[in-house]
Amino acid sequence: MKQIAIYGKGGIGKSTISANISYQLAGSGLKVAQIGCDPKHDSTRLLLGGKAQTTVLDHMGSGIKDLGDTVSVGSNGVICIETGGPEPGVGCAGRGILTAFNFMEANDVVPDDTDVMVYDVLGDVVCGGFAVPLRRKYADAVFIVTSGEFMSLYAANNVLKGIRNFDGDGRRVAGLILNRRGNEGEIEYVQNFADAVGLPVVTVIPRSGDFAEAESKGITVSEMAPDSEAAAAVSKITRIVKGLLSGKAELYPARPLDDDGLDLVAKGKKAVRGSVSRARPRKLATGEGEALRSCGAVMSVYCCAGIEDADVVVHGPRSCHCYFSGGYDSFIIFTTASRT
Amino acid sequence: MKQIAIYGKGGIGKSTISANISYQLAGSGLKVAQIGCDPKHDSTRLLLGGKAQTTVLDHMGSGIKDLGDTVSVGSNGVICIETGGPEPGVGCAGRGILTAFNFMEANDVVPDDTDVMVYDVLGDVVCGGFAVPLRRKYADAVFIVTSGEFMSLYAANNVLKGIRNFDGDGRRVAGLILNRRGNEGEIEYVQNFADAVGLPVVTVIPRSGDFAEAESKGITVSEMAPDSEAAAAVSKITRIVKGLLSGKAELYPARPLDDDGLDLVAKGKKAVRGSVSRARPRKLATGEGEALRSCGAVMSVYCCAGIEDADVVVHGPRSCHCYFSGGYDSFIIFTTASRT
Repeated sequence: MKQIAIYGKGGIGKSTISANISYQLAGSGLKVAQIGCDPKHDSTRLLLGGKAQTTVLDHMGSGIKDLGDTVSVGSNGVICIETGGPEPGVGCAGRGILTAFNFMEANDVVPDDTDVMVYDVLGDVVCGGFAVPLRRKYADAVFIVTSGEFMSLYAANNVLKGIRNFDGDGRRVAGLILNRRGNEGEIEYVQNFADAVGLPVVTVIPRSGDFAEAESKGITVSEMAPDSEAAAAVSKITRIVKGLLSGKAELYPARPLDDDGLDLVAKGKKAVRGSVSRARPRKLATGEGEALRSCGAVMSVYCCAGIEDADVVVHGPRSCHCYFSGGYDSFIIFTTASRT
Repeated sequence: MKQIAIYGKGGIGKSTISANISYQLAGSGLKVAQIGCDPKHDSTRLLLGGKAQTTVLDHMGSGIKDLGDTVSVGSNGVICIETGGPEPGVGCAGRGILTAFNFMEANDVVPDDTDVMVYDVLGDVVCGGFAVPLRRKYADAVFIVTSGEFMSLYAANNVLKGIRNFDGDGRRVAGLILNRRGNEGEIEYVQNFADAVGLPVVTVIPRSGDFAEAESKGITVSEMAPDSEAAAAVSKITRIVKGLLSGKAELYPARPLDDDGLDLVAKGKKAVRGSVSRARPRKLATGEGEALRSCGAVMSVYCCAGIEDADVVVHGPRSCHCYFSGGYDSFIIFTTASRT
């Protein structure tokens, strides 16, 4: 099985593209599952006749045992799941993804003979939660959807930073997908960024009324008009995923730009290759006067993980996503949330 | 002192608008501080001659005691601070805000005689971290910046959901700020949403070359062209903030739309008033088979907080943002991250 992650800024069209990829892959005889990892939970609707399905978080919150439509079978037999997200203003938005991944493993909802898993992930804020599908265990290859607007390239660069923090110089990025808005000069604008980060633009999705027409029918363009220019543009991605299955896809390291490089891109000027520093090296503990950075639990574990001359017991809630971090499997983590 | 929070989707122009508000308020003799709460950390640049300042998180990570330019004084004497954000892919993106708030209190960086604090906050993902400025202790009034694009209204609606989870029927929303992109029909599109959520559009910021010109000079439009149409549009917000200081501003409850209502707005159809449910009521514990939702630590505390017939000790990292939640002050929280 191969797993791919499609990242992109909210509203960039990654769900539409993901659904088309899943539909095409499944149409060629592969068994496909698509996991929407965005609190907006509309990743799978074009595979389900336009209908919204119950999210994993809503299912778990309901207390009902029957899965209902939490795991649905869509067009071409694609298995559809939406992680959902928490109530705005409460807790961690990426937590839905972690919970859903745990749920999927515990309930064995994805058949063992699945060939491709497609994760459709919000890339606005690449925090530890939304970065889960980037972990090696999950994504074999990452595509990033962008348009010719600066904020979508800013988000793409953050996704690259997230990958780099996991992979270092490892090769896991398949390339950029340009979803056209129709701005003047957008192809050159995105190509300039692509050159600077050393990635190919694997396809250019055209602006096309076919997308809106298919959307109004609740289906993918690939289903409505398989011979259209839009479907052909998606098929370039599908071919890369098939190449991945046969070990023939070319993958690239994440080489994000630093602030100065991004600033040049924003102004449409030629940017040199990225020069951001590698992920911070492990150290014995936080320095004097230095606060734990980021989420408390993650960083507690991170700090402890740097101590290599002692056994460490981490004591925290089981639902904490440190629990899922492959590298920390040897830590004992248990919940403290109980009546005392 | 009054504190206002300006929320909006990334790239919507909230930093430019916030800097103009701060500049105008300070120009009328008020003491103002602007706190950028966005990992993109460019909230204060137009108050600092276009220069980026050291973020609170970077300062804390440096181990250097001297504050350097972490707290800077900008145009018209506005005190400028950027919270910053963590490395993409690691930990909680909203954590920077929590850390910065703690840092500002511990280091007394904002003078006691400050009249107005302006928080400029990313509204893409309203998780517990980015919702911190919504807490009653911080924001007396909330403005939401939007354009005529659906995703910015989607983000605005999530901000309203976050506020509602804190406030219930309380009145704390000052209104929407429409930052024009120039799309056809965008004023009607946003007004339709505003009507549905029962909020005024307090001002319409025009598309104007003045913004780009001021940006290239590293200053605000209000400084470059105080008599411009753009500056006049911002001054409508400034007047509301001054009204707040004299107890005369009209504030509104957060009445977000549910999915169906938003769907109507997306299609440009008339949406009825919001019908989302209130925040989930407290209960004794999670139900059978129900996972802790959202961030582990937050929800552990949340669950415990529902137990009203027992004393509860919460055991977790001090840097966890539960620690900052006013309602949980009576809990004992301490860090577990130490060598054992």
